[in-house]
Amino acid sequence: MEPRPAAPRPRLCDSLGADQTPSASTPNAARAEARPAARRAPAVAAVLPAGGSGERMGIPTPKQFCPVLERPLISYTLQALERVCWIKDIVVAVTGENMDAMKGIIQKYQHQRISLVEAGVTRHRSIFNGLKALAEDQPDSKLSKPEVVIIHDAVRPFVEEDVLLKVVTAAKECGAAGAIRPLVSTVISPSADGCLDHSLERARHRASEMPQAFLFDVIYEAYQQCSDYDLEFGTECLHLALKYGHIKAKLVEGSPDLWKVTYKRDLYAAESIIKERISQHICLVMDTKDENHVGHRLEEVLKDELNHVKVTSRLPCHTGRDLDQIMSEQCYSYVCVNVMTSDFEEIRKLVNMLEESNLSILYPVVVISVYFLDYKSVPFDQKMENLMQIREYAKEVKKRNILLCGLLIYYPQDEQKLQESLRQGATIIATLIKERNSGLVGQILVA
Amino acid sequence: MEPRPAAPRPRLCDSLGADQTPSASTPNAARAEARPAARRAPAVAAVLPAGGSGERMGIPTPKQFCPVLERPLISYTLQALERVCWIKDIVVAVTGENMDAMKGIIQKYQHQRISLVEAGVTRHRSIFNGLKALAEDQPDSKLSKPEVVIIHDAVRPFVEEDVLLKVVTAAKECGAAGAIRPLVSTVISPSADGCLDHSLERARHRASEMPQAFLFDVIYEAYQQCSDYDLEFGTECLHLALKYGHIKAKLVEGSPDLWKVTYKRDLYAAESIIKERISQHICLVMDTKDENHVGHRLEEVLKDELNHVKVTSRLPCHTGRDLDQIMSEQCYSYVCVNVMTSDFEEIRKLVNMLEESNLSILYPVVVISVYFLDYKSVPFDQKMENLMQIREYAKEVKKRNILLCGLLIYYPQDEQKLQESLRQGATIIATLIKERNSGLVGQILVA
Repeated sequence: MEPRPAAPRPRLCDSLGADQTPSASTPNAARAEARPAARRAPAVAAVLPAGGSGERMGIPTPKQFCPVLERPLISYTLQALERVCWIKDIVVAVTGENMDAMKGIIQKYQHQRISLVEAGVTRHRSIFNGLKALAEDQPDSKLSKPEVVIIHDAVRPFVEEDVLLKVVTAAKECGAAGAIRPLVSTVISPSADGCLDHSLERARHRASEMPQAFLFDVIYEAYQQCSDYDLEFGTECLHLALKYGHIKAKLVEGSPDLWKVTYKRDLYAAESIIKERISQHICLVMDTKDENHVGHRLEEVLKDELNHVKVTSRLPCHTGRDLDQIMSEQCYSYVCVNVMTSDFEEIRKLVNMLEESNLSILYPVVVISVYFLDYKSVPFDQKMENLMQIREYAKEVKKRNILLCGLLIYYPQDEQKLQESLRQGATIIATLIKERNSGLVGQILVA
Repeated sequence: MEPRPAAPRPRLCDSLGADQTPSASTPNAARAEARPAARRAPAVAAVLPAGGSGERMGIPTPKQFCPVLERPLISYTLQALERVCWIKDIVVAVTGENMDAMKGIIQKYQHQRISLVEAGVTRHRSIFNGLKALAEDQPDSKLSKPEVVIIHDAVRPFVEEDVLLKVVTAAKECGAAGAIRPLVSTVISPSADGCLDHSLERARHRASEMPQAFLFDVIYEAYQQCSDYDLEFGTECLHLALKYGHIKAKLVEGSPDLWKVTYKRDLYAAESIIKERISQHICLVMDTKDENHVGHRLEEVLKDELNHVKVTSRLPCHTGRDLDQIMSEQCYSYVCVNVMTSDFEEIRKLVNMLEESNLSILYPVVVISVYFLDYKSVPFDQKMENLMQIREYAKEVKKRNILLCGLLIYYPQDEQKLQESLRQGATIIATLIKERNSGLVGQILVA
């Protein structure tokens, strides 16, 4: 199974009429084979300048390589682009210094259709290098020239297929297109002595964001013609297309998600957003079909407490196919309800399935093993000592990015107290899933 | 003891030469008493428009009232302003609909020097209402007219005293001043048909942020003179001062922290920043002076693992004064190391002191009660059962915003294993302090 994005969307290949089979090429591999021209659909490639030093972040690591849930930010952006099947090639411009790190990222997170080129000293020069790799006029060009090229930022990981499609469609029509957003602050122009010269009317201006798209020939010629001053100090590709390509650039309203990770606070925000996205679906694995069992009551309480989260339940792992389905839908949170036994058989089967699914390559997967404590049959301390065996196993599976915890829920006779136990259990489950923190792996929580 | 900000700074009263005693008035109270004119120091007040609906957030609650660590965002901004002793009055403009909620916030979080006025339908009208409350020409004016007025946003909670001082000083000199930041995105101007008309050179423009400051008479007259169009569609106070007051507005470079909480992601970022700030200092409370004891080794490991965090240790609570000192320095994280006993005496004393300090009014305080398990003396299950009593007590103190957990650390004979236990204990402590999540209150973690 191939890892997929957190929020799968309908594939829009049909809208572009493009060939749906992604090329199976590996990074930097020669891809000289000619592609059949798709009917009416433009051949699309993407260029991602990733040579920035991230000085605004206030930390030594360039921001595109900063870890978010322990994975470099740029890997999320690549994931967002490569899940769009009609983007044939993704050219990433990185500095020589970061080239090996980038190759490591591509390999570790199994990115596809990526080619690397050396970044220039400015953003425009990096983009130009990316375009050269796609142009067939270069001596070492290995990629096919696309009809339309997307330019995006490595530090905008939340780009969605719909806005990519919008800019590509508009670029095919007009020659150039880019996403814009309303201004958050008023923009002013300072005078030479550090005073206000004038302020711009906010309603008449927009922030130019990414992605942008261009007819390849338009933007490539613009880069070939533009001045050194442009390459050194310019910041806007649409401006180059307008100035040198003499085309009208269409502006497309983007969503707030397009924002650029610039400061440390943006990394915090990105991590919270990603955690939230991968916690939208919880799968309970039950070891009993009995509809009256307490496991099903836990399911009800969970649905009640987490009303914005999809909670589904499945029979145990040995039935197999059902769980395969859930995993292919990118569910990253599992609650294994052990009613019939106190052993770890079910958990082991689930973890094995998760490992086979490769789900945890991209995101940490939370697994919570739930047991019930019926005072009548087993005393607390004995049950607890028994469950402590989970600690060693949890340490082991943590290496594969699977975060395993135990949860022991009291099962009193009193109905009201039972409800309270279940509610606390649900709170603990919600906390562990939301925080997804590896520091608590192997703990036995008690509700 | 009065609750203080997370990051205390040297008070700059002397720089302004102002009276250091904050007025002890309560919200909305009449304050007609004349103040002695401070030598050379301007009398300073602040106006905070907080009437926005927060439609960009995509949630029904206006963003200034959204909870961050369970406290409304605006309370953090008020805290940032009121800790500046030379700001005499803070006038907040809120809609009639939110007036009661705002009064509740002021009372619950013990804010000082706040007056409320009714917001207008636009930002400029809200500011104008705030200024009217400070002008002595109004029939119901109860506040004294300041020489300089600061205008700030309710949704910029991280404003620091130094930038407030800079804008006030510059305003006194020039008549108006405001904080600016470099642009993150290129700003463009769209044409009527939704295409790019032109893009602005990023280096020649800045984002106008808050705070801003004005000579009161300059800005008040500007608001009195400006047109309905200005009041309806304008966004920039500096612009009004320039247009109607004919003064030069000084621009002051601000820090990235001045950013405006606009989208949901900004709330996530704000929460992470606040959590990080209040987790910069951990106090270990030891119940033994013995320098060779394992508690001190835990301290060493914590210092080693959390090298950006200040870790200090103190003798137990009955010695008193030392801990008072730590609490007055706004330490929000306590690790109580119980070596001599297994009871909860020390924890109870510490919690009582915390309650008296009022520290947890503003932020959740984490308390971790650490015990060591020496297999030779007590078996695991017995120790665990004993410690479970902490659960009920934790539930009780949670009501006072104190988050109590237990931590049981194995104490094996083997030196290497002991070091491993301590290291895992430190990881758990770091996780609990960093996440500060009430869902795990009362749990006994095991290292």
